[in-house]
Amino acid sequence: MTRLWDKGAPLDERILRFTAGDDHLLDERLVAYDVRASIAHVKMLNGQGLLRDADCEAICNGLTELADQHARGEWAIDLQDEDVHGALESRLMALIGPAGARVHLGRSRNDQVLAALRLYLKDTAVSLADGAVAVAETLDDLAGRQGDVALPGYTHMQPAMPSSVRLWAGGFATELRDDALGLREAMRRADMNPLGSAAGFGAPGVPLDREATRAALGFASTQEPVTAVQLSRGKAEAALLFEIALLLGDLGRLASDLLLFYTDEFSFVSLPDAMTTGSSIMPQKRNPDVFELVRSAQAVAVGALTETLAITAKLPSGYQRDLQRLKAPLFRTIDLADDTLGIMAHALSGVVFRPENIALSDDLHAARRASTLAVNEGIPFREAYRRVADFLDGDT
Amino acid sequence: MTRLWDKGAPLDERILRFTAGDDHLLDERLVAYDVRASIAHVKMLNGQGLLRDADCEAICNGLTELADQHARGEWAIDLQDEDVHGALESRLMALIGPAGARVHLGRSRNDQVLAALRLYLKDTAVSLADGAVAVAETLDDLAGRQGDVALPGYTHMQPAMPSSVRLWAGGFATELRDDALGLREAMRRADMNPLGSAAGFGAPGVPLDREATRAALGFASTQEPVTAVQLSRGKAEAALLFEIALLLGDLGRLASDLLLFYTDEFSFVSLPDAMTTGSSIMPQKRNPDVFELVRSAQAVAVGALTETLAITAKLPSGYQRDLQRLKAPLFRTIDLADDTLGIMAHALSGVVFRPENIALSDDLHAARRASTLAVNEGIPFREAYRRVADFLDGDT
Amino acid sequence: MTRLWDKGAPLDERILRFTAGDDHLLDERLVAYDVRASIAHVKMLNGQGLLRDADCEAICNGLTELADQHARGEWAIDLQDEDVHGALESRLMALIGPAGARVHLGRSRNDQVLAALRLYLKDTAVSLADGAVAVAETLDDLAGRQGDVALPGYTHMQPAMPSSVRLWAGGFATELRDDALGLREAMRRADMNPLGSAAGFGAPGVPLDREATRAALGFASTQEPVTAVQLSRGKAEAALLFEIALLLGDLGRLASDLLLFYTDEFSFVSLPDAMTTGSSIMPQKRNPDVFELVRSAQAVAVGALTETLAITAKLPSGYQRDLQRLKAPLFRTIDLADDTLGIMAHALSGVVFRPENIALSDDLHAARRASTLAVNEGIPFREAYRRVADFLDGDT
Amino acid sequence: MTRLWDKGAPLDERILRFTAGDDHLLDERLVAYDVRASIAHVKMLNGQGLLRDADCEAICNGLTELADQHARGEWAIDLQDEDVHGALESRLMALIGPAGARVHLGRSRNDQVLAALRLYLKDTAVSLADGAVAVAETLDDLAGRQGDVALPGYTHMQPAMPSSVRLWAGGFATELRDDALGLREAMRRADMNPLGSAAGFGAPGVPLDREATRAALGFASTQEPVTAVQLSRGKAEAALLFEIALLLGDLGRLASDLLLFYTDEFSFVSLPDAMTTGSSIMPQKRNPDVFELVRSAQAVAVGALTETLAITAKLPSGYQRDLQRLKAPLFRTIDLADDTLGIMAHALSGVVFRPENIALSDDLHAARRASTLAVNEGIPFREAYRRVADFLDGDT
Repeated sequence: MTRLWDKGAPLDERILRFTAGDDHLLDERLVAYDVRASIAHVKMLNGQGLLRDADCEAICNGLTELADQHARGEWAIDLQDEDVHGALESRLMALIGPAGARVHLGRSRNDQVLAALRLYLKDTAVSLADGAVAVAETLDDLAGRQGDVALPGYTHMQPAMPSSVRLWAGGFATELRDDALGLREAMRRADMNPLGSAAGFGAPGVPLDREATRAALGFASTQEPVTAVQLSRGKAEAALLFEIALLLGDLGRLASDLLLFYTDEFSFVSLPDAMTTGSSIMPQKRNPDVFELVRSAQAVAVGALTETLAITAKLPSGYQRDLQRLKAPLFRTIDLADDTLGIMAHALSGVVFRPENIALSDDLHAARRASTLAVNEGIPFREAYRRVADFLDGDT
Repeated sequence: MTRLWDKGAPLDERILRFTAGDDHLLDERLVAYDVRASIAHVKMLNGQGLLRDADCEAICNGLTELADQHARGEWAIDLQDEDVHGALESRLMALIGPAGARVHLGRSRNDQVLAALRLYLKDTAVSLADGAVAVAETLDDLAGRQGDVALPGYTHMQPAMPSSVRLWAGGFATELRDDALGLREAMRRADMNPLGSAAGFGAPGVPLDREATRAALGFASTQEPVTAVQLSRGKAEAALLFEIALLLGDLGRLASDLLLFYTDEFSFVSLPDAMTTGSSIMPQKRNPDVFELVRSAQAVAVGALTETLAITAKLPSGYQRDLQRLKAPLFRTIDLADDTLGIMAHALSGVVFRPENIALSDDLHAARRASTLAVNEGIPFREAYRRVADFLDGDT
Repeated sequence: MTRLWDKGAPLDERILRFTAGDDHLLDERLVAYDVRASIAHVKMLNGQGLLRDADCEAICNGLTELADQHARGEWAIDLQDEDVHGALESRLMALIGPAGARVHLGRSRNDQVLAALRLYLKDTAVSLADGAVAVAETLDDLAGRQGDVALPGYTHMQPAMPSSVRLWAGGFATELRDDALGLREAMRRADMNPLGSAAGFGAPGVPLDREATRAALGFASTQEPVTAVQLSRGKAEAALLFEIALLLGDLGRLASDLLLFYTDEFSFVSLPDAMTTGSSIMPQKRNPDVFELVRSAQAVAVGALTETLAITAKLPSGYQRDLQRLKAPLFRTIDLADDTLGIMAHALSGVVFRPENIALSDDLHAARRASTLAVNEGIPFREAYRRVADFLDGDT
Repeated sequence: MTRLWDKGAPLDERILRFTAGDDHLLDERLVAYDVRASIAHVKMLNGQGLLRDADCEAICNGLTELADQHARGEWAIDLQDEDVHGALESRLMALIGPAGARVHLGRSRNDQVLAALRLYLKDTAVSLADGAVAVAETLDDLAGRQGDVALPGYTHMQPAMPSSVRLWAGGFATELRDDALGLREAMRRADMNPLGSAAGFGAPGVPLDREATRAALGFASTQEPVTAVQLSRGKAEAALLFEIALLLGDLGRLASDLLLFYTDEFSFVSLPDAMTTGSSIMPQKRNPDVFELVRSAQAVAVGALTETLAITAKLPSGYQRDLQRLKAPLFRTIDLADDTLGIMAHALSGVVFRPENIALSDDLHAARRASTLAVNEGIPFREAYRRVADFLDGDT
């Protein structure tokens, strides 16, 4: 295939390789979305009288066929295609002939990639949110099984007040549901139709119907004015990464607790052998590697978020090739979040608290005692606190 | 004042200084909010029969008086107070006597600071959102004055298509309004009542009414279970910082455009002398320092966001003193955002486009011509594109 | 292959996939280094009388053969191998029989991976440093060709003083050589022999000679005590990433200058067609995509650095599986730096300054005039500055 | 004082406030260094015949007097001064009359601030390195007192092999000395004389002797060419921040270990009351706040490093006002590192290991047993490992 913008000049191969980067690999996940957006665009062109019925039908059928083939693994984007758009356009022309070239009217790769990406982001956010809720439900199950097991409630990693497995699991479950809500809300910035903005300044000379593509693709609104579209690049991506960072932060703290509880010295929980790994040098050990990897998974999201914010920083307005760099940190973090949610739902089901090893010192009731004293005797909490403290000190 | 938790042991002065850090300075802005939350708590205690009417009234009046004094600059938190809570409690006892100590029933500094902080965050987010809209309106005004001035629409920093001051300013105005919406939405995570969670495990022995404090303070909901409260620390803070990072990112890109337009070689805009600074060594220069500082303001927010996410990372559940570090990056970034919004509304009012220096090459209409050709002759855009390209090449 | 630590319990497939991650892909580049380190270890064992000559020879020959086969592309690490160590051990045993199992005496995967990684890092730092110097030399060449072309020296993006292509290129060349030096110095932290520390606490019962492996592998020193080895994980990696971030920062600023100089309004430089790309919608454009991608390449390094520092943060001492996450951000950033250096050496050779478009206003000599006035008349610079400024103001 | 570059136009007060920022506060620490650099510059001018002896003497005496006054707290920089340079220049003219204005010949604030900053950085790096070594020595002392106490050596937070307080403390001491070395080496980038580069393009018309100021100020070399000076801004700052991040990372991991050892469940260490704080609600608790604050101190450094790298990213060459933002993150992180080192040297002296609570399971010798078996019987480690593992499994 020759590149659309290639007017015959010999192309420098190293430049192509450098500029295309890993787009041909990264874009694999966008094929189905690009097809969907292209069909919406083409039908709109047809509705506006800019494309004949026969061409419209041929294109839509061709794209659908290509999407099906791709889903069956019959083709993949290669470096010469550069990206998903080049891959689809060349294959479409091979499949249905010159009519395939009519897709490009009133559209630029700049709004095209954004349409596909936003559709993908919307699906992804819902899927990750569902995954977070699934982990919360696993915690609910744990609370159902062992909720009554008493646990010290820690502050400063010191036993402070009485708590329970129910309260412990419930706190994390609430935060995971909060993360799920955050993931869904973050998609507000992806829920805007970019089609019709073309390279960022509209499509002069082509009477497009932006509302038609918006409705067909299910976007909540159409992004206006057209110059806002490219300016907004990176914001929806960053918003999703930020929410993933919070989610993985919560999972990381859950893992920290479990790693602490799994130490020999605590021995508050047991893990099934299938979820631990052995040591290559110390035969007696069973290591909780899964939770260690979960503990530091947030690092990947924070790195990706930093990277994403740095990519768009200080750029003059209008499309810049820098924006291509947004995909890699986004996709690798989405995949990690997805894997981590899957493994946590899986691994948490094997966590068993060991009440026989969990003792609550009588001291933990000191706050309750001071409060009760204050309430019953009507003295200030401060005085009650001193009385209980003196009593405890006397104890020691 | 002696510290509440000080049971007489000699306190190590360096440890105090290190652990208290800058809290006494940072907490200044929380005084009014802590008073408001304490009054809500005290009235609830009274409503629950845990505090006599006379004590309740004395405490409420005392706290109100202290807040008024503080607003008039009559006192400030000092290092020995450690933080806003110590400062208010000791001054309240000095003002109304031992009854002041009754405030503390059913409450810990852990939920107390969070109540004050969240009230502050909610106010702040609204104020920053208003500031972002005000800058958007300044851009609307600019579009009103000079919207018809033609501008090249750039992609890759190269003139690409016809644009205008209206489209240019409108794109940024839309993004700033998007940021304003983001700031408001980010407050979902601050809009939950933490009171009643005490140190993170509730207040056993004290029949609190969490709904009463929620309603009095205007929180949308009460955070449940109590263990979720401390787990959620840092998330609302990070969410606000993230939205500020997007806001300052948009303002930074606006500044980048203006700095480009203000170069001698572009000379697209003029700035009034009052908004530029001179050089200490080169008499002829007028420098656009304001926009340079705005260009890199996002760096501060990104640093603060990274810092914030790193503070809570991997912490076991339950309150940890690490969380104290959340305030400094949050407050300095809020102040920067506030200053930057103020200066941008101010500075943008002095920007004047210079149409006499802005020429649009005929080339910019190439895309329109290719599109029109494609539409009129019913040929694929691809073919029209080649024809126009060949024509332009012939030109040169 | 069965995993060494697998004592028969059925392994959970999802756990394996999650814990092994992409190690089998990432470790490809470590094969040759692991072989080298293993041979040094084995020869040391032989020297210590812990391994018979025949076994030593068989193992060394076997490992060498495996390295050669790998270099020829005849095998690759697969998921079941988990990592480079598993891949080599199983293939070695298939090749030479049970004697292959004798490699593992006195060694853990913890010190083994570190030995291979550090050897790789040392090679990589030298290679990147050479690449940075090569780009500096390309700038020297440019200065050689067009050094006398006058350029405005800019401050605040405003013309300030007279400069030249020689000074402009020379500034960047100096910084790139500074980066090269930084890259070499950063390797101090990788230049320590980890072998003999085993899992982090030495190899009790096995009289190892750490000096022998140090000398054989060319490490500057042996890391002592053994507990320091795992504590230091991530520091050499972060140091290299930091230096790459500075390098890519300098290249990014060089790209920013060139993108500015390549704008239509400046037109200070031309780029050959082979190094620019066309537009899919605007036939007249030639876009400098290469320099845009270079401008934002630093973002990747900064993200990776943040990720790396976050991975090790707050971890208790001793090996933790979190450390496995260090490889991915490190390797992808090394590859990016390598590509970027290659493309910049290539692309800069095509940059041609266009003196016909570069005019230096007489104003640029104002500072020189004020200085000369001050020197010649013996008046304070401040007074001379005012006189020149008044003169210039009069001009306008 | 009127600003040097103020040619009479009314200055916009808000713009001044925004552009000056906190410079007047931040620059306090630079006063002595700016005086030192100014004296070197003035003596060089005198040596070059550009300044009369009497003026030179008056200026040097005046500056010395101002530095002494400042050290005695008799004056401070205020907002109207804008920065340290304005503060010194106006006070010098008030002190010695118009001759004070002669300091500015052949110099710009751009090279002036850099000279003062680099001298400060060099001092600071040495001081922090000394502080790191002091903490290492405190660990040596601890090893001296309790080095023989047995500790489990942990991997994956699981007891793995026998270790000791000596090995535990020694690992951290080694890393702290490594950090000290890193801090010293990081100063290579600050050890270059910027004077003579003026605004970034030299001082045409003024025959400066850059070698003279280099020698007088003790810089290792003179930075060439002049255009490299402003390009290098932020690199020495980032290098110091990076090394501080590693240092605080090591201290944070040390704190993590101690927090773990201080849990009730481990009870491996005791801390004196003077170094712990009480709870406002739970009378029985003593909290290790110091170590919690140390654990998360690295977050501040990582945020500052990210901020610093983001400030200079993508900037066109030549001085830009964005660079002013480099001081705040640098100074606050230096102060934090200094405080943290001080408190850790202090706090570690109070840590006492409690051997009565530390038991090493017989399992910890499994690796030694497998090794010994392998060595003695000449069987592969792998086989020995299985035998020991089977034996241990039989045990359970």
